[in-house]
Amino acid sequence: MSITYAAGFQTGTAIAHRPGGSRRRNLALVVNKGPMDTAVGVFTPNRFRAAPVIWTSRILEEGRAGAVVINSGNANACTGSEGLDQAKAMAERTGRNLGLPAEQVAVCSTGIIGHLLHLDPILAGIDQAAQELSTSQEAGEAAAKAILTTDTCTKTVALDGSGWRLGGMVKGSGMIAPQLATMICLITTDAIVEPDQARRALSEACRLSFNRIDVDGCMSTNDTVLLMASGASGVRPDPVEFQELLSQACGELSRRIVADGEGSRHRIRIQVDGAGNEDAALACARAVSGSTLLKCAVAGEDPNWGRVVASLGTVPVSTAAYDPDHVDVSFNGVKVCQGGRPGQDPSLVDMHVPEVHIDIDLGHGDSQATVWTDDLTHEYVTINADYHT
Amino acid sequence: MSITYAAGFQTGTAIAHRPGGSRRRNLALVVNKGPMDTAVGVFTPNRFRAAPVIWTSRILEEGRAGAVVINSGNANACTGSEGLDQAKAMAERTGRNLGLPAEQVAVCSTGIIGHLLHLDPILAGIDQAAQELSTSQEAGEAAAKAILTTDTCTKTVALDGSGWRLGGMVKGSGMIAPQLATMICLITTDAIVEPDQARRALSEACRLSFNRIDVDGCMSTNDTVLLMASGASGVRPDPVEFQELLSQACGELSRRIVADGEGSRHRIRIQVDGAGNEDAALACARAVSGSTLLKCAVAGEDPNWGRVVASLGTVPVSTAAYDPDHVDVSFNGVKVCQGGRPGQDPSLVDMHVPEVHIDIDLGHGDSQATVWTDDLTHEYVTINADYHT
Repeated sequence: MSITYAAGFQTGTAIAHRPGGSRRRNLALVVNKGPMDTAVGVFTPNRFRAAPVIWTSRILEEGRAGAVVINSGNANACTGSEGLDQAKAMAERTGRNLGLPAEQVAVCSTGIIGHLLHLDPILAGIDQAAQELSTSQEAGEAAAKAILTTDTCTKTVALDGSGWRLGGMVKGSGMIAPQLATMICLITTDAIVEPDQARRALSEACRLSFNRIDVDGCMSTNDTVLLMASGASGVRPDPVEFQELLSQACGELSRRIVADGEGSRHRIRIQVDGAGNEDAALACARAVSGSTLLKCAVAGEDPNWGRVVASLGTVPVSTAAYDPDHVDVSFNGVKVCQGGRPGQDPSLVDMHVPEVHIDIDLGHGDSQATVWTDDLTHEYVTINADYHT
Repeated sequence: MSITYAAGFQTGTAIAHRPGGSRRRNLALVVNKGPMDTAVGVFTPNRFRAAPVIWTSRILEEGRAGAVVINSGNANACTGSEGLDQAKAMAERTGRNLGLPAEQVAVCSTGIIGHLLHLDPILAGIDQAAQELSTSQEAGEAAAKAILTTDTCTKTVALDGSGWRLGGMVKGSGMIAPQLATMICLITTDAIVEPDQARRALSEACRLSFNRIDVDGCMSTNDTVLLMASGASGVRPDPVEFQELLSQACGELSRRIVADGEGSRHRIRIQVDGAGNEDAALACARAVSGSTLLKCAVAGEDPNWGRVVASLGTVPVSTAAYDPDHVDVSFNGVKVCQGGRPGQDPSLVDMHVPEVHIDIDLGHGDSQATVWTDDLTHEYVTINADYHT
């Protein structure tokens, strides 16, 4: 189940490497057959925005698009005006195949930074993918696979609303940052959703999902989350239900990214309670999730609360008020640090679990925030020393 | 050559583990025989300050101390009022041996967080070290060795002023942070330096040295840099020369820390030019030095400028103004990125060198900052998954 779970969406894939390259499919075309053409996006805040991000954020200003074309392997980032011309050429070629103006086609790219695309095989791939468009589940799965780079598995979602559906796919496992990721996410729905509602709902869904994961603290040039609505179900969803399902989809997909974090063996959920406000809780959670020392400790299955408080201690008082002598830290329910001092015996903590829960109580207020990350392993180093993004 | 290079300083070491523990010497006592007793410090800004940091920062308010006692293996951090009593007990025992009030004795600890000290062997070690006090070079080297934890080598300095000397030792290789490190540094001089001058000079020397290194972005609870002046040379140094030599000592010792970074194979110097002001340059340099993706790339000897600009792009405009289309990046003198786009061929870069220079020109102003870090290797993960700090 993937983006074709929602009615009104077709997809096709193709091999679009330069001659002699891999035989893996690395291009996906997704078409919204309508009757609506709602399309909205959330994009990386990185100041080095890749060409496809510049193109797509511009054409989605009105909240409408008929298709999206995605290539993996080359991010078309840091490629100047020539790169922007290439992104536009991808949109034009897609539009020509589908009878759409280029300004109706969103473009996403992920992969290596600082190289112009090999455009010819990509344009040929677009032609080929356009010939293979299908609403089948298999086609949806193939698209979810075609957008991957160092990911070890496809990451998709399929959810049912009251008379409408929502499907999604995401790509991303490294360069996962405090704000989004090297991540391309496409969510489709057959509900009747206008651009304004879609934009608000997507922003809220991202705030508590993709913006709350952190694999390695690195923010990419290409992060993009798109939501397209076809209206093909004929159902105008209850706004609360729509928000809930969209948030659930983004939450599930974001946690799949962390679970597929490069070289990861443990997911880590860092929950901060007792903060004066949500921003303070979030700043503390991110300080802890950003600690490479802590991430190594979890890889070594060591409930090292010293590294948790050492990270907490780097958050300025002006950002998060708390008294170090009132801070509690639990690993998987065992309160190993109480009032800033040793608490229960760390040997009571079972770290042989795929998901480690670190709960921090600042003892200062009532606000809370949760961030997901993963551990730092040998495999992460291997992947990122060898893979040239 | 170490802290005994300057006249007026004695040191002794001892084994101070709990019964059945290691036979490595892990306690050092350093005594200033005068005639002056100037002693000033710079301490971690971490909000979880370890007990010895609380003790020592308090007793150094007047800028005077006659001795410092340092133990390695246990940081006496996050140990509450009991830990503070232990730090005070170390000062008292040292003072009793030397005929000094406890308030004349600085205390430093480094090692595991969240455990009370095994105080008895430490107190016995203080007695033993006090019996072995010596001004010899060998004693100085032994002290530099006794303070180590995961360090792979001693890190010392010995410099000559005009008629006076400066010696130093430092410990630290992991948990090296934007602000100081899990680092204990002691610098001694036989120049005549009053507390006010010492404080100003040390602060300035740290600003451009220990505060500009970053091994893993982790700020410790125990970071301490101490400067003690005996005045034994009888020479009142030229203030400019004193600042220069002190800055040189701190610079050399800080770079030794990076070179001994846990599991490190490459030192990385990140220099940012063309910034609107120094803070902007520093923020950009730190954003790059904090990228685990970049650090993995350097471990893999890949001059991956895409990861450099992706990190630069995370710095908010309000912190550092620059135009991404005007940014140049060089690896070891090869301008692989020019104007935010691909420049010279990355294959021209020789990465088989112990020190990698990444030069970034923001093309916006005239200010500059330099940060040192190291690469992220399998060995780093091994050390930090297995060593329980």
